[in-house]
Amino acid sequence: MVVQYDGTRYDGWQRQGNTENTIQSKLESVIGKMTGEDVEIIGSGRTDAGVHATGQVANVHMDTEKTPQEIKDYVNQYLPDDIAVTQLEEAPDRFHSRLNATGKVYTYWIETAPKCSVFQRKYIYTLGRKLDVEAMRQAAKLLCGTHDFKSFCSNKNMKKSTVRTVKTISIQERGSGLEIHVIGDGFLYNMVRILVGTLIEVGLGKRTPDSMREILEAKDRQAAGATAPACGLFLTAVMYDS
Amino acid sequence: MVVQYDGTRYDGWQRQGNTENTIQSKLESVIGKMTGEDVEIIGSGRTDAGVHATGQVANVHMDTEKTPQEIKDYVNQYLPDDIAVTQLEEAPDRFHSRLNATGKVYTYWIETAPKCSVFQRKYIYTLGRKLDVEAMRQAAKLLCGTHDFKSFCSNKNMKKSTVRTVKTISIQERGSGLEIHVIGDGFLYNMVRILVGTLIEVGLGKRTPDSMREILEAKDRQAAGATAPACGLFLTAVMYDS
Repeated sequence: MVVQYDGTRYDGWQRQGNTENTIQSKLESVIGKMTGEDVEIIGSGRTDAGVHATGQVANVHMDTEKTPQEIKDYVNQYLPDDIAVTQLEEAPDRFHSRLNATGKVYTYWIETAPKCSVFQRKYIYTLGRKLDVEAMRQAAKLLCGTHDFKSFCSNKNMKKSTVRTVKTISIQERGSGLEIHVIGDGFLYNMVRILVGTLIEVGLGKRTPDSMREILEAKDRQAAGATAPACGLFLTAVMYDS
Repeated sequence: MVVQYDGTRYDGWQRQGNTENTIQSKLESVIGKMTGEDVEIIGSGRTDAGVHATGQVANVHMDTEKTPQEIKDYVNQYLPDDIAVTQLEEAPDRFHSRLNATGKVYTYWIETAPKCSVFQRKYIYTLGRKLDVEAMRQAAKLLCGTHDFKSFCSNKNMKKSTVRTVKTISIQERGSGLEIHVIGDGFLYNMVRILVGTLIEVGLGKRTPDSMREILEAKDRQAAGATAPACGLFLTAVMYDS
């Protein structure tokens, strides 16, 4: 299934011990009610508290007589109005939305004017300052490729490999702001937000594009820029080999 | 000034005795704080509780040394994030946003799928049923022109003329929904929402396009359809002779 959500009022995607206020919990509760059994929804990956999605992918194993369309209609009827299932189809039994994912697309929206459209205010980061887009593009180029992204990971105790491949970072001017797409094979905790936060500091002239090399080499979270706010970030698509 | 607002949490545009929770009150409070004097903001007209605007026009008389840009920046900084001034310029002293207005454009959004985009949920009416757009267009044609719109007015005690001219009602398919533009010289209380609610009933097959004639002739609110929900309605533009 493809899941769309406004992450504003949730504690992120992942079910957690002490809170039912996650996207995964809401989906499990509705689908569990439908099947009469406890179900586990497997997402392609976590999204942080406040992060949105237009293309999160998840799978669930269930026994039901219902057609995919009937399941989708049922689920959308009972989900809160800030979560929607936009596609739902039967998958091969071995399909696993996280393990089979080969890449992800994230989109980050920045408003450089002092005030954004009131209708976008929960879905954009209102920076309110002009950015040097050319410098940001130069820096972005240096961040693409296969690198150890330890400096761009908020989890200090990460024991697994922090090597990832960022395929593309595209920065486009949209109205009085920027639309940034980050495409890669996988991302560390907070990685997209730290990448964007660091690029913003380049755009503000606080860092040079060339300094990206040193940040990567440092392998230290302190070397990179601030974590950009969650509200501007969308998980746009998850890729699978067909 | 041109004012944009998300009307969701407000009791409409107009300042009222018992509530400060209106767009006009918020603007008057911020501008009054700036000038140190009580000011009266004159809007082009009221919008109902829950109705949005991308192009409300308002004017205010004030003594200030500030430039229009400085006033705009100040006001946007102190307004709540669901109200923004998108344009502000000096007007001739005799300019009156309501009395000089020669026409208005309203836009109404309808989603015909069972669930709308989660990001649009506060800005669209999720009808969740298919509509016969051709029938709606035929009905819309009969409603255009200069008529007594008493049947489309919620105010039973309206003593002034209820004759208005509707120039255009355009109905366009957008994604899995409709975008309706209603353009006229002026509108009665709830008139756009009752026009849309009546057209929806035509689209659902509950009324024939031809029955629009009888509704107009009846000059009775009971003859027309339901008042469509406020959340789908935007005041898009106010027109002035230049």
